[in-house]
Amino acid sequence: MPHIALNSTEPGIRGLLRYRPDTARPLSELTEVLLRGPSTLTRGERELIAAYVSALNDCRYCSSSHSASAAAQLPGGMTLVEQVRADPGSAPVPAKLKALLAIAAAVRDSGRAVTAEQIAAARAADATDVEIHDTVLIAAAFCMFNRYVDGLATTAPDDPALYAAGAHRLIVEGYVAPPAEPGREG
Amino acid sequence: MPHIALNSTEPGIRGLLRYRPDTARPLSELTEVLLRGPSTLTRGERELIAAYVSALNDCRYCSSSHSASAAAQLPGGMTLVEQVRADPGSAPVPAKLKALLAIAAAVRDSGRAVTAEQIAAARAADATDVEIHDTVLIAAAFCMFNRYVDGLATTAPDDPALYAAGAHRLIVEGYVAPPAEPGREG
Repeated sequence: MPHIALNSTEPGIRGLLRYRPDTARPLSELTEVLLRGPSTLTRGERELIAAYVSALNDCRYCSSSHSASAAAQLPGGMTLVEQVRADPGSAPVPAKLKALLAIAAAVRDSGRAVTAEQIAAARAADATDVEIHDTVLIAAAFCMFNRYVDGLATTAPDDPALYAAGAHRLIVEGYVAPPAEPGREG
Repeated sequence: MPHIALNSTEPGIRGLLRYRPDTARPLSELTEVLLRGPSTLTRGERELIAAYVSALNDCRYCSSSHSASAAAQLPGGMTLVEQVRADPGSAPVPAKLKALLAIAAAVRDSGRAVTAEQIAAARAADATDVEIHDTVLIAAAFCMFNRYVDGLATTAPDDPALYAAGAHRLIVEGYVAPPAEPGREG
């Protein structure tokens, strides 16, 4: 049960966005720009970074949601997402993405954990400055979202089909669409 | 030296906001709503939560900036801010703020570290649901900002007078004012 009385039964961040529209607006816009805005990283790659950081933070709602979104937008599907979550170093992803995932894991520990060597490795794998910037900010943002969702003890459904349906909806509608009616789960 | 080539010499998050306006917009709006929007917590109290979390995360730029803002807006000034940063449990702040600072420290560790007992203690000290919500989100947001600022190795001035000047400017202008010209430090 959530720590505070929300005004809907929606799980995870959805209930929080409905509860406090003034903070929902910038939070949704930030997610839209980072995960779906113009970028040389694909939407699937950016969702994968979000899913990976959320899994490291043990946030079941966020890791399930963004794993489903990544799986729906990457050729390797959920098999690839699970390989990355288990061990990005050995997962069959391009060298650039591997280097960016290593930076994301460092950011998850602490901003101060990112090393010049990790940045150099990303650059050697042809990562641009904006890609490095966005990877750091995606990882940092999910350190916020994971803490927001779990810090208020929001609920997380068990059924993977609900996350898959949610992923499908957001691929069509994006993160700034008006929230679904209370009771419409996912 | 920052890990990426920024387009200004501005320190901390100021250089990052100037570098990437598309993410700057929602980040600034989020900060404005959380720290300066309508709330039953004073602006000084909210800046204090931000300063405290940033200090726990060892982020020099953010902890210096928000300590200066808190000090400028709290009757106890910088002495009180330093007492809270050293040990909130013994600092001369109201019971409600003490309970909210304990929640913020837990969020900083992990969203899953917040306990039902901490929430009950805040409620017993007359914290409302929205105050608990906002405390969790402020703490979570500064876990993002601290990682963003340090993960890209931005610079942080040493001179406390620069942070005090920056605090004065933002008390007047707010967090969504157009960024200062490059070179205008603080």
